[in-house]
Amino acid sequence: MRSVIAVYVENKYGVLTRVSGLFMRKGFNIDSLTVGETDDPAFSRITITLNGDDYAREQLINQLKKLHNVKQVKLLEGETSVERELMLVKVRTTPENRAEIMAAAEIYRAKIIDYTTESMCVEVTGEPSKIKAFIEVMKPLGIIEMCRTGVVSLERGGSILEK
Amino acid sequence: MRSVIAVYVENKYGVLTRVSGLFMRKGFNIDSLTVGETDDPAFSRITITLNGDDYAREQLINQLKKLHNVKQVKLLEGETSVERELMLVKVRTTPENRAEIMAAAEIYRAKIIDYTTESMCVEVTGEPSKIKAFIEVMKPLGIIEMCRTGVVSLERGGSILEK
Repeated sequence: MRSVIAVYVENKYGVLTRVSGLFMRKGFNIDSLTVGETDDPAFSRITITLNGDDYAREQLINQLKKLHNVKQVKLLEGETSVERELMLVKVRTTPENRAEIMAAAEIYRAKIIDYTTESMCVEVTGEPSKIKAFIEVMKPLGIIEMCRTGVVSLERGGSILEK
Repeated sequence: MRSVIAVYVENKYGVLTRVSGLFMRKGFNIDSLTVGETDDPAFSRITITLNGDDYAREQLINQLKKLHNVKQVKLLEGETSVERELMLVKVRTTPENRAEIMAAAEIYRAKIIDYTTESMCVEVTGEPSKIKAFIEVMKPLGIIEMCRTGVVSLERGGSILEK
């Protein structure tokens, strides 16, 4: 089962290594991981998406909570959260495929942020399923390289990942 | 000096821990880190932003290249690359500040993706400097929580992070 876990940590040396190391030791393969500062620079927020069964995931969350510099851990449920991801994808352009790339970008509300005679770089934002669909559209057109941020997620409404 | 480093890795257990562990041992504090699959699910791309002097950074890149499952490492220069980041920010709303939040969102081309009587969740995308500016605008309005993806970056033009 796919899960999204938010981890609120003190912004200290080594905390990311401890967190990712715990996932490794427990045999969880991380699908995506993002880490960035919060509005208080002393704290960072890590968002991890992974696959695993419920029981193992519960154990993992309990152990995460015990790690040094980890202040809070929360499982974010898909129904009560918003999820977003950003991707940059560079596509080989030819006189034949240029219009198709631009049309696809418009439909996906993506932005073309670099354009040369041989390539375009497209920025697309959305839920992971939208990102995946856009990759499938671009693949036959010729992806040169791509870079995904991984998922960030917040609970809907006024709730807060408590400090 | 701020640097952006792209690391192309085999999508294997523990590679992220090895990469982040190397930064920790060398005493580099990572500002942001993203990791996501590429168009080939066997490989992932890690993007790291950090501060440090040129000499230490060169050493770090050389040691990254020697790590198990690391296929390619590249320093991305700001002048020849595009950089993007995504942020979700949840703001406390009142009848007084609602219009101001919506006006700021429009100016920053941000999207309101959740809206309740007490809060709004705003999605904003751009260069790190734009994200930072948007945080400064939202702070006095009352940030409840926020989540940044960290930076992704691709070189301009048709070049590719070689496999």
